Amino acid sequence: MTDRRSFLKTAAAASAAAAATPLLGSCQTGKDKYGIGLDKSLQSKLIVEPGNAVPITGTFLDEISTDIPHQNWGEAEWDRDFQYMKKFGIDTVIIIRCGLRKWMTYPSPYLLKKGYYYPSVDLVDMFCRLAEKYGMSLYIGLYDSDEYWYTGVYNNEIEINRFIIDELWERYGHYKSFKGWYLSYEISRRSKGAIEGYQKLGQQCKELSKSKEYPNGYPTFISPIIEGIKGVSAQSAQLRRADRPDIMEHMRDWDEIFEGIHEFVDACAFQDGYNDYDEIEDYISVNKMLADKWGIHSWTNCESFDRDMPIKFLPIKFDKLRMKLEAAKRCGVEKAITFEFSHFISPQSAYLQAGHLYDRYLEYFGKKI
Amino acid sequence: MTDRRSFLKTAAAASAAAAATPLLGSCQTGKDKYGIGLDKSLQSKLIVEPGNAVPITGTFLDEISTDIPHQNWGEAEWDRDFQYMKKFGIDTVIIIRCGLRKWMTYPSPYLLKKGYYYPSVDLVDMFCRLAEKYGMSLYIGLYDSDEYWYTGVYNNEIEINRFIIDELWERYGHYKSFKGWYLSYEISRRSKGAIEGYQKLGQQCKELSKSKEYPNGYPTFISPIIEGIKGVSAQSAQLRRADRPDIMEHMRDWDEIFEGIHEFVDACAFQDGYNDYDEIEDYISVNKMLADKWGIHSWTNCESFDRDMPIKFLPIKFDKLRMKLEAAKRCGVEKAITFEFSHFISPQSAYLQAGHLYDRYLEYFGKKI
Amino acid sequence: MTDRRSFLKTAAAASAAAAATPLLGSCQTGKDKYGIGLDKSLQSKLIVEPGNAVPITGTFLDEISTDIPHQNWGEAEWDRDFQYMKKFGIDTVIIIRCGLRKWMTYPSPYLLKKGYYYPSVDLVDMFCRLAEKYGMSLYIGLYDSDEYWYTGVYNNEIEINRFIIDELWERYGHYKSFKGWYLSYEISRRSKGAIEGYQKLGQQCKELSKSKEYPNGYPTFISPIIEGIKGVSAQSAQLRRADRPDIMEHMRDWDEIFEGIHEFVDACAFQDGYNDYDEIEDYISVNKMLADKWGIHSWTNCESFDRDMPIKFLPIKFDKLRMKLEAAKRCGVEKAITFEFSHFISPQSAYLQAGHLYDRYLEYFGKKI
Repeated sequence: MTDRRSFLKTAAAASAAAAATPLLGSCQTGKDKYGIGLDKSLQSKLIVEPGNAVPITGTFLDEISTDIPHQNWGEAEWDRDFQYMKKFGIDTVIIIRCGLRKWMTYPSPYLLKKGYYYPSVDLVDMFCRLAEKYGMSLYIGLYDSDEYWYTGVYNNEIEINRFIIDELWERYGHYKSFKGWYLSYEISRRSKGAIEGYQKLGQQCKELSKSKEYPNGYPTFISPIIEGIKGVSAQSAQLRRADRPDIMEHMRDWDEIFEGIHEFVDACAFQDGYNDYDEIEDYISVNKMLADKWGIHSWTNCESFDRDMPIKFLPIKFDKLRMKLEAAKRCGVEKAITFEFSHFISPQSAYLQAGHLYDRYLEYFGKKI
Repeated sequence: MTDRRSFLKTAAAASAAAAATPLLGSCQTGKDKYGIGLDKSLQSKLIVEPGNAVPITGTFLDEISTDIPHQNWGEAEWDRDFQYMKKFGIDTVIIIRCGLRKWMTYPSPYLLKKGYYYPSVDLVDMFCRLAEKYGMSLYIGLYDSDEYWYTGVYNNEIEINRFIIDELWERYGHYKSFKGWYLSYEISRRSKGAIEGYQKLGQQCKELSKSKEYPNGYPTFISPIIEGIKGVSAQSAQLRRADRPDIMEHMRDWDEIFEGIHEFVDACAFQDGYNDYDEIEDYISVNKMLADKWGIHSWTNCESFDRDMPIKFLPIKFDKLRMKLEAAKRCGVEKAITFEFSHFISPQSAYLQAGHLYDRYLEYFGKKI
Repeated sequence: MTDRRSFLKTAAAASAAAAATPLLGSCQTGKDKYGIGLDKSLQSKLIVEPGNAVPITGTFLDEISTDIPHQNWGEAEWDRDFQYMKKFGIDTVIIIRCGLRKWMTYPSPYLLKKGYYYPSVDLVDMFCRLAEKYGMSLYIGLYDSDEYWYTGVYNNEIEINRFIIDELWERYGHYKSFKGWYLSYEISRRSKGAIEGYQKLGQQCKELSKSKEYPNGYPTFISPIIEGIKGVSAQSAQLRRADRPDIMEHMRDWDEIFEGIHEFVDACAFQDGYNDYDEIEDYISVNKMLADKWGIHSWTNCESFDRDMPIKFLPIKFDKLRMKLEAAKRCGVEKAITFEFSHFISPQSAYLQAGHLYDRYLEYFGKKI
């Protein structure tokens, strides 16, 4: 039998033990198994003006990916990622495409009839719900056959998306978070049928989504590539190409494209990773000038992966991201989105460089971690 | 001196402190440094029938690797990996090869005489012990000179393995976990000497390991490649090839190979990653038909890495794994093994996508995490 | 009001709870969410003589990288990395280059006039401070235009570095940790102007840093490549090359180079990753013999990344590192440095294989973790 004295002793011993290092372990002291910890009071000593850049407020959701390996997240991890996005300042998420080749993000009756692959989860539904939960606007990208990259022809693209747009509206139109359309061809320069494709699909999207709040239909946007020095295939071992159009050709081409599509496309976010860092500002300013001319909103797609490394692709170096966002600010760009948060910036990314990029970004913009 | 009252106060204070949040820190609340946690109650909403697939019950151990970077695990990490395997449902582990070019998994007297490299750990011994500890069957793979890939000739392979098989049996034959042989040539189609090689080596393995329990010797198996559209070198920047034999040629070739080897090979697990996803079922069903014809057990080697990405190689997308295992079930495949658990599925893999694949798999098969 | 009895009860309950599993959670018990833990008592069973090798006591700091993706660490992470280095046995850190193409590690007035990119942090200053804090010697590498790789001409290199060396000395010469210069051309064989470049820049570095302690100026060192079988571009999909000079040509070339530079270069650390593992000892012994002949200290740059894998580059397999350091010991090499600790060995590296390499290394050298 335990008398009071020994009972007290036991209680005290347990308490003491609970407070001691061996019991409470590393998570208490912040030391790892080597006895080494992180001194969080150490701040990086910035020698540039902090926050003098366009903040990133949108991101693609690249869940059907062409060249970025999948992270295999379930709904719990996606929920957490939306929390990380929110803290980062993201208010807009864009499903990059709702189908790619034979892969789908949702069980499309139209694509199933073609024998395409049934997904295990309805990702469009999940992203609509998560965007609603965290108060973000969701853009849904169209189906991408991947054929036009090789053929230059968009006929099939247009034909299929006529059905896809209707399906998307019918299935997900009721979600309040669904706020816009992403026309997902990554065209560059004039491609046969591209202008017509943007017109037709943009028009259909807008017709369908007209409402009191959006009398002309939901906004649409595009995010084209630039045929720059880094415009090589992800499958290529090379990082640069020798031939490419110069900036004047780029300007003439896009003047013509914007002329053709400006009635059906509300914003344009050129991908900013195809040029050398000292060319980027020139390109952004030309793009801004053209967009202003044709009444299109100037966004930038600030790529958060590094195009200069033999591993294709890991998170970008913070200073590269910063320089691109600073250039965007100097040019008066309205909004920066990124490709993309979940692999290249998220603290839970499989690429651990991403979480440090997240921290550097918050540090630069003076946000608390 | 401490009186009883103050002593009690101290005890109570320590207890209270131990229970409080700031002391116990983030591991208690599940929140990270951003104040963000994972809501484990969120389940992915599956829209496919769960578990309607052949489960993975075997894995290669790729500790001497040709193209997958090494994780540098010690015995403690390997012990933990066997625990992860066990929970996943693995009952069979296969040492993919006991030597490769000049590298060895064990200090082979025969290979040492050739000047090959002395290993710092006897991995075969370690894997035998771990398989025994966790109640798994271990297959040991033979020596792989890597020469036949380039020469098409297996003479050297056969000559060396005559000695290696004897060494393996002498050194590790006493382990109860040692239950079978893996004939490690990854041949495809008819290669000069391959059939003869399988015959000779299979026969030697079986002769040596005859026992009451195994009157014909331990089982042997092979895991050949399929000359499919993704049959390109890991060192190539390309992902696909233009030329390849069609499925009828594949059938005729393997009918001939099986005819030659069926007396010495008990099971065949074709690698399932070389074909497009909508071709896989055709290939598996042809393979099953041929294996049945020749009395060989039909396994499948369900690759758990992604062949479609520019980074060669990271863990596969769960839906791709699922589709292959579903196809295997529809075709009546007996057992699925994978290449391989420790890099591409294990929760302690250096590739963090792997742990999420583990979770998706358990979720799909209705197992608790 | 709480009487003493219930007070005691509460205290005891809190204590008990604090010691119980559900409250203290996984970090206490060492079990993860799967209920699986690491049994730290399990030691790898080494079958080689432990520690019979040159220890690594120096590392490059590759913060301006050509081909290794950036980790995005802030000062807190760098501070922690110096702690990991210290425990590992590092006493020397080398900034691999203070500028590369248009990128800088510090705000160089000279390079800014050329329009090069302003960095967000003065990395040279940070590394000087951290080396001072942790009692290490810091070598600073010169500016690298990257042009000579393509042109074979070093004129521009010499011209620019004349200014850079002065800037470095003026800005950072007062740091006690600043102890040497790294002449950062990775030349191999005779390149036009290379010898003259080493002479001029080595002389300038030494003149500037003469002191009582260093009457001939701070020590300088180089770390050349060897034109070996693995001497292929990081951007190439290939791992090996067919043509290469043989070891006799290597010897003749370097005899001539050493003759030209030995007055201005104190140590030479050839990169040890370009040869096959059974050629390495021959190369190191030739290098040692030549260095002895010309009065240059023999170091080795023991690369800690793997050149044999399709992912370029991840941490090396421990046995490969061990074999190279063993060969260095047999040849009498004085000091081993590595390229580089922070990506390929550090426990906080984004490549998790690195932390396991750290553990294997400490285990082999009989150091406690």
